[in-house]
Amino acid sequence: MKTAHDCIPCLIRQTLNAVRLATPDEKVHISVLREALQAVSVMDLNLCPPLMGQHIHRLIREQTGSPDPYKSIKDMCNRYALALFPELEAMIRASADPFEAAVRLAIAGNIIDFGANIEVDQAVIRDTIAASLSEPLNGDVPALADAVRSAGKILYLGDNTGEIVFDRLLIVRLPAGRVTFAVRGGPVINDATMEDAIATGMTDLAPVIANGSDAPGTILDQCSDAFKQAFDAADLIIAKGQGNYETLSGNRKRIFFLLKAKCPVVAGQTGCRVGDSVIAQSSWP
Amino acid sequence: MKTAHDCIPCLIRQTLNAVRLATPDEKVHISVLREALQAVSVMDLNLCPPLMGQHIHRLIREQTGSPDPYKSIKDMCNRYALALFPELEAMIRASADPFEAAVRLAIAGNIIDFGANIEVDQAVIRDTIAASLSEPLNGDVPALADAVRSAGKILYLGDNTGEIVFDRLLIVRLPAGRVTFAVRGGPVINDATMEDAIATGMTDLAPVIANGSDAPGTILDQCSDAFKQAFDAADLIIAKGQGNYETLSGNRKRIFFLLKAKCPVVAGQTGCRVGDSVIAQSSWP
Repeated sequence: MKTAHDCIPCLIRQTLNAVRLATPDEKVHISVLREALQAVSVMDLNLCPPLMGQHIHRLIREQTGSPDPYKSIKDMCNRYALALFPELEAMIRASADPFEAAVRLAIAGNIIDFGANIEVDQAVIRDTIAASLSEPLNGDVPALADAVRSAGKILYLGDNTGEIVFDRLLIVRLPAGRVTFAVRGGPVINDATMEDAIATGMTDLAPVIANGSDAPGTILDQCSDAFKQAFDAADLIIAKGQGNYETLSGNRKRIFFLLKAKCPVVAGQTGCRVGDSVIAQSSWP
Repeated sequence: MKTAHDCIPCLIRQTLNAVRLATPDEKVHISVLREALQAVSVMDLNLCPPLMGQHIHRLIREQTGSPDPYKSIKDMCNRYALALFPELEAMIRASADPFEAAVRLAIAGNIIDFGANIEVDQAVIRDTIAASLSEPLNGDVPALADAVRSAGKILYLGDNTGEIVFDRLLIVRLPAGRVTFAVRGGPVINDATMEDAIATGMTDLAPVIANGSDAPGTILDQCSDAFKQAFDAADLIIAKGQGNYETLSGNRKRIFFLLKAKCPVVAGQTGCRVGDSVIAQSSWP
């Protein structure tokens, strides 16, 4: 998707939130902000917002001198979600439609996101989980179930740490042997990387590949050949979160985007309201 | 007051809101946004936010080719407030303490502001008025009443159109012959100018002077000699709204700032919460 005018103030707000989370040094805050303002002032709006996000997070890593400034937050999110896992599994087992329940909880896990909103605390996560099985869902679960049944190869694009534990609930309910899980190629904000796939047990459930890019989404031009081959070979892509939506919404593969709508721009494009749980489909074929 | 880091994303958000209000032309929206991003990227944070606001609103006027792009909104705000006026006067007459009621309503009128928030609609204005007489007020009304009683010359710095009608309620309860009302020297967003003072009947109640500047606040260095003389000669300044607070909070004159706190930065500095009604006093003498 292109960058909307409304994305511009949001990119600047996210920059300040993110750099504050990365370091308490106010000199770094203003230095990164000034460089982000400069970069956004000349950005090509035909490109997607995560491309600028990638640039800004590279600035933050450079200026903090830390290759992974959110490491402790990421570990905390994974630990928190792993502690919830037995309860989440029990919710699914107790539900009338375990596949739909797993889809709903995988989407609920997308609330754990320090990219769009740093205000997400444990109370919000618990409320989101509690509401997830009964709230209206903007999307077609039977269509997803059909697509899953008929797909020989499924590529599941992960999003955030913490959230990746919720993805396990759905991964185990997809046809065994047909699913590959993908993570970012390098640290970018709190997005899940190979390290997180290992720490959360995802690597025990499915083959996991890194996409070769440190963008907070899936910018195919930047991805490794191995990832691009897996992407091309997949009959079905399940893509989690706004970053993957923003980078792949125009792609002609068969993609089901599973996400919480976190901003008016994406809510508008997916025909829902901010805060809604969404299954959006790509224009396919 | 200096520009806080939190002011930076807000200035960019306000730019987009304001330029959208000024014209439907999306090319102008992005052109103004890009110039604002550029200007903010190199701004001196030791200066106050309204200085950048002034620059941005000059850009909007230049690029829309309109010397007063909010004229119709301003007229609408004045008309709306004038229609409310008899009801507001009746509220004050029915109150146990008419001076305090007039102060509270003058502050309530500050909710009419397209600078900080374009979402303010008539329902919000009516709710604000309804709550104004009974809600907690962050400030010392008796201290203001004492200052008014002992001041030979009072300079009352207006803020927005619409709001200026609410100021009339208080102006008529200040000592006759001692008050001068000041407006901005030229159009800037929906701030009141001499034209609005005439249209709302303010010029029938007190001498009105223009400050000689098109900043959305009172930047003394930019003001006319006549205004600066009135400012220096005043024993008491009553200053409405955040713009006047942001530009004069460090001034050593005796100033009572009457405002609705519209952002976390000003709320933090005045020791209240966003949305609160505030009477803040300068460090005096």
